[in-house]
Amino acid sequence: MIDNSDSEVTIARVRMFRRLLAWNVLQRLAMGQRECKANNTLPLLKTAKGTRDYDPAAMALRQRALKQVCSVFERHGAVTIDTPVFERQELLRGMYGDDAKLIYDLQNQGGELLALRYDLTVPFARYLAMSNIGHIKRYQVGKVYRRDNPQIGRGRYREFLQCDFDIAGTYDPMLPDAECLKVLVEILDTLAVGDFNVMVNHRKLLDGIFGASGVPVNKFRTIGSSVDKLDKLPWDVVRDEMIKQKGLDEVTVDLIRSYVTLTGGVELIDQLEEDTRLKRFKNAIVGLQDMRLLLKYCELLGVKDRITFNLSLARGLDYYTGIIFEAVLLTTDESSVGSLAGGGRYDDLVGTFNRKGQQIPCVGVSIGFERIFSLLESKASRSSDQQKVRIAKTQVFVASAHKGLLLKRLEILNMLWGAGIKAEHSYKRDPKLLAQLRYCEGQHIPYALILGDAELARGVLKLRSVVDRQEEELKLDSFVNEVQDRLSKECD
Amino acid sequence: MIDNSDSEVTIARVRMFRRLLAWNVLQRLAMGQRECKANNTLPLLKTAKGTRDYDPAAMALRQRALKQVCSVFERHGAVTIDTPVFERQELLRGMYGDDAKLIYDLQNQGGELLALRYDLTVPFARYLAMSNIGHIKRYQVGKVYRRDNPQIGRGRYREFLQCDFDIAGTYDPMLPDAECLKVLVEILDTLAVGDFNVMVNHRKLLDGIFGASGVPVNKFRTIGSSVDKLDKLPWDVVRDEMIKQKGLDEVTVDLIRSYVTLTGGVELIDQLEEDTRLKRFKNAIVGLQDMRLLLKYCELLGVKDRITFNLSLARGLDYYTGIIFEAVLLTTDESSVGSLAGGGRYDDLVGTFNRKGQQIPCVGVSIGFERIFSLLESKASRSSDQQKVRIAKTQVFVASAHKGLLLKRLEILNMLWGAGIKAEHSYKRDPKLLAQLRYCEGQHIPYALILGDAELARGVLKLRSVVDRQEEELKLDSFVNEVQDRLSKECD
Repeated sequence: MIDNSDSEVTIARVRMFRRLLAWNVLQRLAMGQRECKANNTLPLLKTAKGTRDYDPAAMALRQRALKQVCSVFERHGAVTIDTPVFERQELLRGMYGDDAKLIYDLQNQGGELLALRYDLTVPFARYLAMSNIGHIKRYQVGKVYRRDNPQIGRGRYREFLQCDFDIAGTYDPMLPDAECLKVLVEILDTLAVGDFNVMVNHRKLLDGIFGASGVPVNKFRTIGSSVDKLDKLPWDVVRDEMIKQKGLDEVTVDLIRSYVTLTGGVELIDQLEEDTRLKRFKNAIVGLQDMRLLLKYCELLGVKDRITFNLSLARGLDYYTGIIFEAVLLTTDESSVGSLAGGGRYDDLVGTFNRKGQQIPCVGVSIGFERIFSLLESKASRSSDQQKVRIAKTQVFVASAHKGLLLKRLEILNMLWGAGIKAEHSYKRDPKLLAQLRYCEGQHIPYALILGDAELARGVLKLRSVVDRQEEELKLDSFVNEVQDRLSKECD
Repeated sequence: MIDNSDSEVTIARVRMFRRLLAWNVLQRLAMGQRECKANNTLPLLKTAKGTRDYDPAAMALRQRALKQVCSVFERHGAVTIDTPVFERQELLRGMYGDDAKLIYDLQNQGGELLALRYDLTVPFARYLAMSNIGHIKRYQVGKVYRRDNPQIGRGRYREFLQCDFDIAGTYDPMLPDAECLKVLVEILDTLAVGDFNVMVNHRKLLDGIFGASGVPVNKFRTIGSSVDKLDKLPWDVVRDEMIKQKGLDEVTVDLIRSYVTLTGGVELIDQLEEDTRLKRFKNAIVGLQDMRLLLKYCELLGVKDRITFNLSLARGLDYYTGIIFEAVLLTTDESSVGSLAGGGRYDDLVGTFNRKGQQIPCVGVSIGFERIFSLLESKASRSSDQQKVRIAKTQVFVASAHKGLLLKRLEILNMLWGAGIKAEHSYKRDPKLLAQLRYCEGQHIPYALILGDAELARGVLKLRSVVDRQEEELKLDSFVNEVQDRLSKECD
């Protein structure tokens, strides 16, 4: 896009400056390296700000939770896709309002200008537009990146995992929308994060409310942002913002208040449909019709009582066009994690990428996995050992009763692996028996297969059940089947 | 490190320049946006160079293959970790020799200087040093990034998935090393990529050979790089490079040749141990002892005949200190994918990050998943429909026989989901029965549950087996159990 005559001047300036900078940096680096050698300075041992490593215990917990999430997605017939972690910068431009400043750009190293993805929704819309797919129900699990202020204790990171479920295609109203809410409730129930509520609103109804209150059309989105702050700020602060910063008059603001403080269910829809001001706005009527249908479908899907129609919910992203929703924890002590998931309908996004402007209506839900994981992690840290997720999955440990059995151990191990049994041994040539058995107990390995010369001479091996310390002898020519039998019984 | 007096001057310059640049860019963006609106220009619809999307069919294949890979890792008792996709730039510096130019840097947006990870090994070493872990057997599956020349058909991408398995800890020689080779062979066998061979060599033996041939110590690594090219270039070209570019004399080069063209098994170790020149180099003796032990262990683990001792294998990375290996396809037509996996021992890497210099010896194998996936994908595209991986996992489709059954459909669906059954329906209010049944056939959904007023009045539903088009009636008060029964029989 930057293509007119004086861009060359800028490019020349950039080049000159780069050379200057590069020379300065090189000098300093050379100096630094010398200093480094002299002082024996090492690279700072830390992960980048707002990111963390996940150790095996955390990963076992994450993988179990992710499996639960994906199994809900698959129960609803969704397929999965994957897209690159970075996109061309121009694709992300203009998608995230004020939050565009949080995008991680890659350095221009020659070639394309790239940026790390900010969510999974825009890449999904790009994928749909590129591949000419008219309808799909897809889920995607992937990390996204935002240069936000991290709040580690609350599960707010700069690199975080999102689990998205979206239904794209032209369908009858509110059927895909209701299923997204169903999926959301199933996931939060399955993960047992605690009591939660899904707040639901409709962008068109919100527009109707703003129109009926006298907000000029070009201020709908910015007033929406103000309203969205009502979950964190008191009314007076938001009121001040709308009047002093955004130039609304007091009558309009008071009218807005009379609407956006309303929450409820079907009875609220009845009440709003009778509202003489709202009636004049087609958007409001469409929004209310959608909401009525949605609540009906949610009732049949058994999730109506998990949902509250909340007129103050606005959500920040620019691309929503229909229902919007957000799940929040109800328990006050954990409420610091904020929203657990959110989503909505975005009917125009794919069309903005499409050369022919062909629209593919979409609705989707995005699970904020890190916040849920931080709840699960703190729960796990409070729970007893028994309830903890088993980390390694080893089923059999092959142990030596005394020295000189390494080669035999390898032979036995190889037979177990060949039969698909998860098995380990010590990487020490002659480990102590007690150390080996302690390892089994520490790692919760159910069985130890103990080799000893006396037993081998008799053609047998000792199988020890680690928990109850019972031992039995298995024949060398049939031990693999015997072990498999015991493991298959353990399974259920 | 950039901390001395005139850095402030540089910072001031950067700020001034940034303002200038920002102003220019803003002007241009505003202009661009106007032009954009006028010409209806859209962002270029493509993924970044050297990257690709994976559609549901590709993902089904990938997930199946990844599950196979991970199940081998877990069979050997490995646990998994995760690390961020970017690291602090200083951590990656000096790790990758000439290939450091392939690292993706993130733009300096204030704060730390970051870069996308180039492999999973250096982050793993950083993790070990940071968390004071003395021993661990871990696997990690994650994307890594290299600004290399992509060769899409050969599975060479700029964003690609690696599957790493590493054993860290101080153990008896060659036991973890042999297990890495076993893991590698098991994975390539499981994935059925075709006939392959694992070439194995030893960095210490290679050093001994260079010493015995008369290469000066400070040229060991660069001569190693030349030798490593022998799989792609003819001897004369490599010889020329060593003499003309790297300054070796002809006698030395001829001696090198006499060694590095050797390949074989135990008999080659016997022969080299008798070599009077090599005998004088301790490194060579240690390397040969290791190789003898490794081949012995590999024999017991049943992988000896999959391995060739190949003295020309050198591998590019700087951090290897012991055995090194690489798996290549033997079939000539597919050989264009090059190496499928590789790895080796790196005993000093963790110590370079550790303030106390504490060493944690490591050995590991890295599976180049994309190359394997490109083989699997081209195999899948040649196979018949039956052999293809099923993409969606839906078990039951809830269909309407005629109009007006939407609400009942939702009720039935909700009962199926509640029982954990994977179920779908049409998002159209009144879909045609034929269209619904065709969808089931196209998606290979095994059962359709068909609702009709006549049946509902009699308290039954029709269950249709999609493949053989057989239908039976199920009672409304027990159909969920009946469906579950049939599905559990299908499973095996």
